Amino acid sequence: MSSLFLRTLREDPADAEVPSHKLLVRAGYVRRVAPGVYSWLPLGLKVLRRIENIVREEMDAIGGQEIQFPALLPREPYEATNRWTEYGPNIFRLKDRKGGDYLLGPTHEELFTLAVKGEYSSYKDYPVVLYQIQNKYRDEERPRAGILRGREFLMKDSYSFDLTDEGLAESYGKHRAAYIRMFERLGLKYVIVAATSGAMGGSASEEFLAESETGEDTFVRGPGGYAANVEAVTTPAPPAQPIEGKPAAAVHHTPDTPTIETLVDFLNAHYESAGGTSVGADRKFTAADTLKNVLLKTRQPGATDWELLAIGVPGDREVDMKRVEAGLEPAEVALLEEKDFAANPFLVKGYIGPKALQDNGVRYLVDPRVVTGTAWVTGADEVDHHVVDLVVGRDFTPDGTVEAAEVRAGDPSPDGQGVLEAARGIEIGHIFQLGRKYANAFSLDALGPDSKPVRITMGSYGVGVSRLVAAVAEQSHDESGLVWPRSVAPFDVHVVIAHKNNPELFEGGESLAAELEAAGLSVILDDRKASPGVKFADAELLGVPTIVVVGRGLAEGTLELKDRATGERTEIPREGAAEAIAAIVRS
Amino acid sequence: MSSLFLRTLREDPADAEVPSHKLLVRAGYVRRVAPGVYSWLPLGLKVLRRIENIVREEMDAIGGQEIQFPALLPREPYEATNRWTEYGPNIFRLKDRKGGDYLLGPTHEELFTLAVKGEYSSYKDYPVVLYQIQNKYRDEERPRAGILRGREFLMKDSYSFDLTDEGLAESYGKHRAAYIRMFERLGLKYVIVAATSGAMGGSASEEFLAESETGEDTFVRGPGGYAANVEAVTTPAPPAQPIEGKPAAAVHHTPDTPTIETLVDFLNAHYESAGGTSVGADRKFTAADTLKNVLLKTRQPGATDWELLAIGVPGDREVDMKRVEAGLEPAEVALLEEKDFAANPFLVKGYIGPKALQDNGVRYLVDPRVVTGTAWVTGADEVDHHVVDLVVGRDFTPDGTVEAAEVRAGDPSPDGQGVLEAARGIEIGHIFQLGRKYANAFSLDALGPDSKPVRITMGSYGVGVSRLVAAVAEQSHDESGLVWPRSVAPFDVHVVIAHKNNPELFEGGESLAAELEAAGLSVILDDRKASPGVKFADAELLGVPTIVVVGRGLAEGTLELKDRATGERTEIPREGAAEAIAAIVRS
Repeated sequence: MSSLFLRTLREDPADAEVPSHKLLVRAGYVRRVAPGVYSWLPLGLKVLRRIENIVREEMDAIGGQEIQFPALLPREPYEATNRWTEYGPNIFRLKDRKGGDYLLGPTHEELFTLAVKGEYSSYKDYPVVLYQIQNKYRDEERPRAGILRGREFLMKDSYSFDLTDEGLAESYGKHRAAYIRMFERLGLKYVIVAATSGAMGGSASEEFLAESETGEDTFVRGPGGYAANVEAVTTPAPPAQPIEGKPAAAVHHTPDTPTIETLVDFLNAHYESAGGTSVGADRKFTAADTLKNVLLKTRQPGATDWELLAIGVPGDREVDMKRVEAGLEPAEVALLEEKDFAANPFLVKGYIGPKALQDNGVRYLVDPRVVTGTAWVTGADEVDHHVVDLVVGRDFTPDGTVEAAEVRAGDPSPDGQGVLEAARGIEIGHIFQLGRKYANAFSLDALGPDSKPVRITMGSYGVGVSRLVAAVAEQSHDESGLVWPRSVAPFDVHVVIAHKNNPELFEGGESLAAELEAAGLSVILDDRKASPGVKFADAELLGVPTIVVVGRGLAEGTLELKDRATGERTEIPREGAAEAIAAIVRS
Repeated sequence: MSSLFLRTLREDPADAEVPSHKLLVRAGYVRRVAPGVYSWLPLGLKVLRRIENIVREEMDAIGGQEIQFPALLPREPYEATNRWTEYGPNIFRLKDRKGGDYLLGPTHEELFTLAVKGEYSSYKDYPVVLYQIQNKYRDEERPRAGILRGREFLMKDSYSFDLTDEGLAESYGKHRAAYIRMFERLGLKYVIVAATSGAMGGSASEEFLAESETGEDTFVRGPGGYAANVEAVTTPAPPAQPIEGKPAAAVHHTPDTPTIETLVDFLNAHYESAGGTSVGADRKFTAADTLKNVLLKTRQPGATDWELLAIGVPGDREVDMKRVEAGLEPAEVALLEEKDFAANPFLVKGYIGPKALQDNGVRYLVDPRVVTGTAWVTGADEVDHHVVDLVVGRDFTPDGTVEAAEVRAGDPSPDGQGVLEAARGIEIGHIFQLGRKYANAFSLDALGPDSKPVRITMGSYGVGVSRLVAAVAEQSHDESGLVWPRSVAPFDVHVVIAHKNNPELFEGGESLAAELEAAGLSVILDDRKASPGVKFADAELLGVPTIVVVGRGLAEGTLELKDRATGERTEIPREGAAEAIAAIVRS
């Protein structure tokens, strides 16, 4: 440590909010260069490489073949799949000196597909799994939490190429198993959740989330084993109801009721006097009886014009924009601005109802709970007026359904077993069955045994390697600093010479470090001319799992061993210490 | 090989000219994605990683500490050193979604300087050597020869930080020794030449060139050990001559003599009749007696206006634009266009002389041979007129000297020993003493023992890691394919099952491969259902150093061993083959 390029910081960096970010900066593992762009200092790079190697070993174990594509990519392949446009502002684009368009690769489906098309031709060539571990680039709108969501980040991406759907399912299963082994070797607490496939296209899709309160992804799980990213939760639709016998829809004057709450209060206070008769004056309304219509606009990739979109959800729920965006991908989605309302005077803010939407040709999607035969209180397209008992399938017909309403803890689990609880996680892996989207875009076929072409089906599998450094740190730290699992720690042992300059202790520390290295362990030796207090604090901060203190006990032939994770201290004899410590490290 | 992602090609790629490019593509090591942008397929990536590890080991051996900076870099640090502008069109620039300026790092002096400034403060912290192995980006005007000159390429760059000039010299010496070890481990034939420091600034500078006819760098060497990049050759200036006694300058009518050759012929035929009297009609002229004035224009980084520049060289030599550019860096240099001549009518093409240049304030630099007292035949600034016996220091005074004239085999060696010979090489390493340029730009100081600041002095050291793959291939191949040295080969042993489908031979090959792997060797097994001829040809093409043929001899208990480099074939007994082969590989 007297010559290591490392300076720890006493204070948390001003821009850091989450523990991993604070600690990785304070312990000198990473440094910020620009928003979402970080440098790896010696200890950080060691942890990153160890995680990278675990990922590599597990990929090799399922027969993955490592290759490496450039990060600087020409536009054409991404144009062919429309992703040049679909990615919008989320990718870095640039021009070369001749004006050619390039991008910094955010993910490499196109290149892998073209590579396989370039090398392979016969059905005998398949299946194949290819992967790379490489820096990727995304121009995140809000890079955050240090290396947790960066704009340059190290990723493992692999792709499977199969002749049949069954083959794809098998490749998917192998990856799933490999990911489970990877994350267990990293000592992570994680959950596998159903996911949407995002801009990638495709069908079966699961995310691996490291459980963490600071994670960006909210997921839900039920007691029966159901677990899903909130974006992927599907709302069980109740059975349709008979229309016959439903009271007629009636418009009522409901003064000063622009919000669901004021509306419900008004109806409960005045329903009878307002003229409602169908169930008598004692009819009770709740927010769940109302249908809230939220106006958005959407734009297809590459289009210049926005299109109006109305979303109807039960009034007791908010619209979750992330769920809406996931449901409408790859289209862009935005809230309406004042000028949009001004341009569409039929939209009466606070009182928008299905009638005006359908009369004016606005696309109207509703929550899956809004099934045929259900009756709703909703806007009557006139200030201070609502309609009661507007029945689906009789009084209006939506254009379809959308998963837009927020998912709440306590909602019934989609698997029919119990209710959901909510938690947060960090996305560390994503596996999904792409299917033939990219094979179709590039006509990737194998010549079959009957000489007919077989369209290849693909899977795509990602692991956020640099993010894993933060995810492990997020799950494994305490108030004093980082607490690395042995599998990823930058060193096996941290030897502290507990004195500023005592020559015997310095010699003792150096000879112990040499013995430990001879025993095959990696060692960081604190041989700085600093006080024991400073050295102990840095040892806690750096987080090497086993700390050996060479202190006053040395004269009597003892060393102190400290387990960083448990805090447990033990005395061990100096003689045979290297073997004893090696045994602990390898246990 | 039956499942390896590898397809060899029978034909050379159409865009390939040099052997390494042809063979690396044909043997399936790399594939082109865009000009100067390549993918690494499994075998190529293995070779790249082996070379990377040799580079890493030698850097670690001199105490280098590995870190990693981003490739995506903000503009500001490069603005502070003016390199944002100086690099001109040679770097990739881009904007992020917020309009911020970024570049893809071509080299990282700025970031390393800032990193050390960020962590270190005391003189006790120094010296330090930091390095990274990372993809770099340069928007080359003419990417060529596959991975030999790419636009995305893997590079090791290291930087030394010292308190004193002596310390810098020591750090430089350590790197020089490390590079020698690296390149010897790679089995390269290379030469260390004096170099210019280019856009980097600084003083002592040497390049490591792998000798190769296809190299882009021309270098010269003398019998006394002198060796230099052509750009760095300094011309020994002859002693000045006395002006007194030199004949007076005289303008002559020299019709139809726009070239040196026509001029010399004319003078030798007509000198007396043209009025020359100083040495009589028998005076013989050669091209070396003439002074050729070449007009260029230069532009300083960031400037919008071009400035005229005249260069005078002896008429028997061409102007070498690469030497001119190196001498004038960081300014841009261009030839004059017709419109420039039109705008400066005093420039009489073919007859430009020092008089018009100096009368019109054109900057005029001459070859070091044009010393005070030498007399020249040169243009008289009038069509069909030249002046004879124009004497330096009497009739004109240049603004300075420039290394502009071509260097030729047979020129005297600058070390005074013998004459130069010319050869070509591939730049594989560059080491140089930057000095305080970057430390000055960022005020990188250490607090000295007397509490006064000490300005740090830096060295910068590069190795082209991906280029080394091509450089080794360039030096080590034959007509049949690649011939890898053992230190970098993708596998130790190539086992060929010399039959299309004989089950005994397949079993024999597989069991041998398993034994070899158990003995710690890496093995590629050709278990394809292909003819022996196809397999032998591919084995030669791939270039693994030791080829083992499992063929008909197996029944009698023998295998055939082939040394890829020498072509030597030997029979060895099957029994104990793994140990015997391991011994050969490790010898």
